[in-house]
Amino acid sequence: MPMSQHALQNTFTPLELKRICSSHFFGALPDQLLRSILSNSDRIHMSSGEVLFHKGDTVDGVYCVLSGTVKLSINQIDGREAVIEIFHEGHSFAEALAFNDATYPATASALQDSVVLRVPKPILKQSILQQPETAEAVLAGIVLHLHKLVRQIESLKTNSAQERLVQYILTATDDQQTSARLEVPFEKKILAALLGVTPETLSRLFKQLQSHGVSLEKRVITVRDRKALIKLSSEFL
Amino acid sequence: MPMSQHALQNTFTPLELKRICSSHFFGALPDQLLRSILSNSDRIHMSSGEVLFHKGDTVDGVYCVLSGTVKLSINQIDGREAVIEIFHEGHSFAEALAFNDATYPATASALQDSVVLRVPKPILKQSILQQPETAEAVLAGIVLHLHKLVRQIESLKTNSAQERLVQYILTATDDQQTSARLEVPFEKKILAALLGVTPETLSRLFKQLQSHGVSLEKRVITVRDRKALIKLSSEFL
Repeated sequence: MPMSQHALQNTFTPLELKRICSSHFFGALPDQLLRSILSNSDRIHMSSGEVLFHKGDTVDGVYCVLSGTVKLSINQIDGREAVIEIFHEGHSFAEALAFNDATYPATASALQDSVVLRVPKPILKQSILQQPETAEAVLAGIVLHLHKLVRQIESLKTNSAQERLVQYILTATDDQQTSARLEVPFEKKILAALLGVTPETLSRLFKQLQSHGVSLEKRVITVRDRKALIKLSSEFL
Repeated sequence: MPMSQHALQNTFTPLELKRICSSHFFGALPDQLLRSILSNSDRIHMSSGEVLFHKGDTVDGVYCVLSGTVKLSINQIDGREAVIEIFHEGHSFAEALAFNDATYPATASALQDSVVLRVPKPILKQSILQQPETAEAVLAGIVLHLHKLVRQIESLKTNSAQERLVQYILTATDDQQTSARLEVPFEKKILAALLGVTPETLSRLFKQLQSHGVSLEKRVITVRDRKALIKLSSEFL
């Protein structure tokens, strides 16, 4: 369908389309359906710190990060913040919630200037009812998300904070490189909240990792020898 | 449809039917569909310790605990165990997984002699395709499960082990009573793994709670003054 392809190309850049298709949710949708959904979606520009939705708000759609970084977190009464997940480009979120009268379980806000795609809830509900086969595709995306949450619970329950930090560094750096340089795209206190520790504990953990060739300066983590870190990680076991 | 009602009554006891309907998943299904699904389901008897499915197995159905207790956990290479969730009577699980070629993210085993309902995967897939409206009902159950996992991650990241233990006790005891007696239906080491601490730490936590009127003997937790525990819980904030 060259017409709608053309229309989509006017709406989304090729890079944005690539990011949408790389998301578990949108990537699992049949081509035709994705096309029709996208032509009814909007692009939201957010400044750093801006809130996309609050915990408890009624769900209004499914989102995908086109550029930037979005934080999903819960602020507790005493000011403590639990960072549940951090979404980068090509990550979709709120997939499971958009098909009924659910409320958001956490607050989403931009960690830097970001652009997100929003597919309005009525568009999704309509698509599911008209093409029941797509329910399976939708569920496939949700399953991956559930698995991710279960793995996070596993890690929080059995791994020490030090293990979680090392895992974070190893996962976020290129496994083809001997040394690595990782620019964390958010403040140190956010990294602490993501790992479930206080900022003070995180500083202590980084100090302990110095002898293993890991250093942190401003927001840049440098790994002298990635293999040594993998070895350290296996010694936790 | 008195015929199928009669057939169901022969297959499931009224108490079992009540438990099935109280589950988020099965309770959200339209009556007619639930009836047709149940007439194609089976009842599995498990001895204490018996495994229902292993992590990595291909998903074969959706389950609901009819009696007993089922543990969902991940055993790590070094022997550490992460207890992800514990399901009691009327809890359904693996709902999101049964609609595609997913594998189980964790192992399910019986913590005591238990009976579970199993709805085979093909029955569910067929129902969804024939009655697309039910996809929404299915997703409603999944959303509640996702919220539960997010709340657990929040608690693991921001609450101390002591706070998690107090929360566990408060949630599991009757909020109408001044004092409470709670029989934990599994070993102490399972409770430790559920809270994400070592058995030694759990013993220490219980010792600290003694001055707040909480005692543990064998598997029985006694709370002298539930209100004092609520007060302690609010002081964590």
